[in-house]
Amino acid sequence: MVERTEEQHSAKMKKKQAAHDRIVASRTVEKGLLIVHTGKGKGKTTAALGMVVRAIGHGRKVGVVQFVKGAMTTGEKVVFDAFPQNVAFKPMGEGFTWDTQDRARDMAVAREAWEEVKRMIADPSYDMVLADELNIVLRYDYLPLDEVLETLAARPEMKHVIVTGRNAPQALIDMADLATEMTLLKHPFREQGVKAQAGIEY
Amino acid sequence: MVERTEEQHSAKMKKKQAAHDRIVASRTVEKGLLIVHTGKGKGKTTAALGMVVRAIGHGRKVGVVQFVKGAMTTGEKVVFDAFPQNVAFKPMGEGFTWDTQDRARDMAVAREAWEEVKRMIADPSYDMVLADELNIVLRYDYLPLDEVLETLAARPEMKHVIVTGRNAPQALIDMADLATEMTLLKHPFREQGVKAQAGIEY
Repeated sequence: MVERTEEQHSAKMKKKQAAHDRIVASRTVEKGLLIVHTGKGKGKTTAALGMVVRAIGHGRKVGVVQFVKGAMTTGEKVVFDAFPQNVAFKPMGEGFTWDTQDRARDMAVAREAWEEVKRMIADPSYDMVLADELNIVLRYDYLPLDEVLETLAARPEMKHVIVTGRNAPQALIDMADLATEMTLLKHPFREQGVKAQAGIEY
Repeated sequence: MVERTEEQHSAKMKKKQAAHDRIVASRTVEKGLLIVHTGKGKGKTTAALGMVVRAIGHGRKVGVVQFVKGAMTTGEKVVFDAFPQNVAFKPMGEGFTWDTQDRARDMAVAREAWEEVKRMIADPSYDMVLADELNIVLRYDYLPLDEVLETLAARPEMKHVIVTGRNAPQALIDMADLATEMTLLKHPFREQGVKAQAGIEY
């Protein structure tokens, strides 16, 4: 850091504050956002979960549909269960995965999960819908991308939808209001042989 | 997607599954992780919050110290309040920020928050400590980096510590077990004039 006098510091901070205030004042639009978390790093599902928790805390109703078993498990379920009026959690992907090696079955699981997402998007009682790991299903062509994009584009105006998973289709990112890429800088699993631990991975 | 027969698909998935199983079996280490969320994108605090929620769900005790007012607010507080035995939430940064333009005061606030983090790290009843936006305080040299690194390096073996904020010092990333950079791909605030909304920003 460059050394600054107290006065210089104060002047700089005042400028920052004023710039920040101007930006906030210029933001007047309220709308349902399409949010995409992608990339190979950690935190895609976890950050979505954090948004769900915030929405719950504000008394909103959230639908969570899990396309692939794994990322969201017992830890968050206990917390969701404490707010039964606010969260509908559908772990549809229990039947999905490399375990089955059955493409037709995986496609059926993906279709069922997607129909649940569509139902929640159409249902006015839901403020937010999380389609967890939908990108993975799209990556394997288990659902038609066009149908997914059309449904998301036609969603009710105030409905927030969060889509997670690596390899988000570019067309989905293009449509998104907010897209974040989680990039791996360092990972203990690979480098140190650390196993999954409660509160970190599940 | 390249078209594959059912057999080819099944064989590929079996291979993926076997590789995944081998990797999981090789992971035997359990340890407290130092986790860093940095970058200019969204989701640094939110993903940390998701980890806190998971840990709570597993009955772990988590200390949350907020160095700068803002990122974590009422939404998560309602959820934390539902698990009073599991979360100690200290919004120390209420007095901090550009609002004050008072460097001496901001340094005092940062010091107080850091002492709270140190106390939680030393207290065996805490399984996880979140130092939210600590990187910002370090960026402004409001705390000595060496002291922070020494404390983190000397933490109890099973203690998870999460540090968030843009501009993480390289030395902190080097020390981390898991470091993720959140990169902004698209942001509605800038591009569409969308204001902060419940469940998304707070």
